[in-house]
Amino acid sequence: MVERIVVIGADAAGMSAASQALRTAAGRGRELEIVAVDRGRWTSYSACGIPYWVAGDVDGPDALIARTAEEHRANGIDVRLGTVAESVDLAAGTVEVAGIDDDRRERLGFDQLVLAIGAVPVRPDLPGIEARGIFGVQTLDDGAAVIDYLGIRKPRTAVVVGAGYIGLEMAEALVRRGMHVTVVEQEPEPMTTLDPDLGKSVRMAMIGMGIDVRTETGVEAFEAGGDGHVRRLVTESGEVDADVVVLGIGVRPASELASAAGLPLGAGGGIRVDDRLRVRGTENVWAAGDCVETFDRVRGAYVHVPLGTHANKQGRVLGTNLGGGDATFPGIVGTAVSKICDLEIARTGLREVDADAAGLEYVAVTIESTTRSGYYPGAEPLTVKVLAERPGGRLLGAQIVGKEDAAKRIDVLAMALWNEMTVMDVAMTDLSYAPPFSPVWDPVQIAARKAADKLT
Amino acid sequence: MVERIVVIGADAAGMSAASQALRTAAGRGRELEIVAVDRGRWTSYSACGIPYWVAGDVDGPDALIARTAEEHRANGIDVRLGTVAESVDLAAGTVEVAGIDDDRRERLGFDQLVLAIGAVPVRPDLPGIEARGIFGVQTLDDGAAVIDYLGIRKPRTAVVVGAGYIGLEMAEALVRRGMHVTVVEQEPEPMTTLDPDLGKSVRMAMIGMGIDVRTETGVEAFEAGGDGHVRRLVTESGEVDADVVVLGIGVRPASELASAAGLPLGAGGGIRVDDRLRVRGTENVWAAGDCVETFDRVRGAYVHVPLGTHANKQGRVLGTNLGGGDATFPGIVGTAVSKICDLEIARTGLREVDADAAGLEYVAVTIESTTRSGYYPGAEPLTVKVLAERPGGRLLGAQIVGKEDAAKRIDVLAMALWNEMTVMDVAMTDLSYAPPFSPVWDPVQIAARKAADKLT
Repeated sequence: MVERIVVIGADAAGMSAASQALRTAAGRGRELEIVAVDRGRWTSYSACGIPYWVAGDVDGPDALIARTAEEHRANGIDVRLGTVAESVDLAAGTVEVAGIDDDRRERLGFDQLVLAIGAVPVRPDLPGIEARGIFGVQTLDDGAAVIDYLGIRKPRTAVVVGAGYIGLEMAEALVRRGMHVTVVEQEPEPMTTLDPDLGKSVRMAMIGMGIDVRTETGVEAFEAGGDGHVRRLVTESGEVDADVVVLGIGVRPASELASAAGLPLGAGGGIRVDDRLRVRGTENVWAAGDCVETFDRVRGAYVHVPLGTHANKQGRVLGTNLGGGDATFPGIVGTAVSKICDLEIARTGLREVDADAAGLEYVAVTIESTTRSGYYPGAEPLTVKVLAERPGGRLLGAQIVGKEDAAKRIDVLAMALWNEMTVMDVAMTDLSYAPPFSPVWDPVQIAARKAADKLT
Repeated sequence: MVERIVVIGADAAGMSAASQALRTAAGRGRELEIVAVDRGRWTSYSACGIPYWVAGDVDGPDALIARTAEEHRANGIDVRLGTVAESVDLAAGTVEVAGIDDDRRERLGFDQLVLAIGAVPVRPDLPGIEARGIFGVQTLDDGAAVIDYLGIRKPRTAVVVGAGYIGLEMAEALVRRGMHVTVVEQEPEPMTTLDPDLGKSVRMAMIGMGIDVRTETGVEAFEAGGDGHVRRLVTESGEVDADVVVLGIGVRPASELASAAGLPLGAGGGIRVDDRLRVRGTENVWAAGDCVETFDRVRGAYVHVPLGTHANKQGRVLGTNLGGGDATFPGIVGTAVSKICDLEIARTGLREVDADAAGLEYVAVTIESTTRSGYYPGAEPLTVKVLAERPGGRLLGAQIVGKEDAAKRIDVLAMALWNEMTVMDVAMTDLSYAPPFSPVWDPVQIAARKAADKLT
């Protein structure tokens, strides 16, 4: 019997799942029939690349597409773009789909259902939010819409609301397109995924590239001109001109479809799945990517962390299971990296505020070092901060900011977190050293060592 | 009672030990009197920086010195340079020392003895090896001798014997000083710390910078001119002009002093120590750095791995114990990194030949990827090879070659080895991702994933 699978969402999680399901099933002599629907125009793309497309560094959208719909079709997946899944009937095993630009309407039957329905940018419920020219940036279609708008309207001023990863990457892209850019952020420092002491470096980098940084500033309203296009923001600290606005205040799981079908959602709105990525309480419904909640190994709790790297891994795990194999997604530790101008920024695990909230006793150590041996040409400064539990020394979290070759070192600390290592252990592990790559004590080990010293 | 400590060897291991012993003892209200002797002219330097000093990238020797003798003296350590330790009498608790350029002679009494006597370059027992202008490069004095020779003799041709890390770094330095450089190596490919398939990339990089690479070529003799200075090499495949020769065929522990004192040596000639770095079978003799053998956690055996990063860590552990604290050196996994021209080279754990020798069943997987997302400007190619044990998937070793930002990724795999992770686990860990730093699957995870696939 051929098993019929419907995949809703044709980006990283959904199409990784579909491809891996076919591969796994083929290895077991099983046959699958897979239909994948998506409201957008593209499949399997890098949404993370949108800011570089906007900046003009990347020829989008083609360069951002890892695998086209045609390639997926050639691989045997019935991909239907411009197609919205309107509702799911779990009892009947059907999905109602409709064409987004036409009258197509169909009821697709499934034996197994995959929800890879992603996340949507949070749009604050403020006066004027419906003005034209206020964009969230989550899908490639969102990116195309921004680029069209910039091309047609040629804005001179831009405001980014929210100074997180996407907000700052978009702010830099807009500066590079010649706009005067203001970033408005409610918190005292940008990049609140870092502790504020490191966030300060991010602020300096933003100012250095000419961005008008307004922190501790709430947005009160958006104002449109007579043509319905946004013209300015009203904030707690005055008005700011804005020919275009980018919203960077986060995304929420696009889980309405799942919710309406009666599937379980976690506190953050993500679909609740087990570690094989089956939706809890179901036999034949699976979910992965930005729409699910994920186990945080450090917090010991489920969280919503919508990142492409997790979506790809989860898609692969899901697909393996769907195809008759057995794989588990072991969770995350909260690793992330970004680059603002020439400042690299990375983090993993808990911030001080997280450790405080968890009631943990800890030491926090911040050190300054260099990316290469101090005497080696091109050595750049970097700052590493680590948190270690008191008294045992278990690593709790780490943050890095610095110039070229600083940030990727976070992976060492992510591996340490993953393996529940102490800072004493981290300080003594066998990391690579040569003058072009590191001081003789790698900066992450200097930080671990100082934390260990502080514990004794 | 003030405890009297003699440290033999005033580079990384010895002076880290001395400094840390003082720090630790001070925290415990104990007083130490430390004498450190060294035959050389400098303390606490980066021998790894010598090739960059020779190349002219670094102003040596000052820039390579982390802490001068004066600084150590100000810290309370009685540093005596140009001083050779000639013999140790363990029963009497004394060391015979002599001035290297004068008639000084003294018997130093000790309560605790620290041996940080380093390693010496292997000099092959071949005709003509005593010619002038044939240099090993291990100490800063060695580096100074090479630089003096280059300055005075202005050689036009150079031969490097041995294509390991130091050999290749020196070969590049000599090319950059305008010499015609030949590298002679017995094995089929350079950089035998890699498997030959990756060694081939190193050969191409060497050729690309104009080095004459002669592999599978043994050296038979060195020929000197009438002035006693080397003029050419006789090799199995003909003669090679050589106005200067650098030996890069490895170093051996400088353990004669220890051996003569009756201290235990391992198979590789390294002093045998426990994990607190006390010499086995003794109460008050300690050793660290290039003169000791070290536990390899992957092989489960003691090996001689003379690297500055281990010497520093061991010195610190030793000093903590010496000062009354308690620390252990947990061993190594065989991580190393180097750079030849613009090619980065890294390795950790076992090569295929090591795994074969250990009688292990394994899969080996080599993948090509990029240092950044493929579409992101500046993405460079890199190759990652991983070995995983069959059938369980335990990571056994890894190698990376590639352009800028390739090699430091080895640290992730070193951490995985350290924690005895499987390739399945490595593929799913939470590493940082953003387009300027990595493809969405980090290259090390692509390699781990493919190895996992091959196992199933």
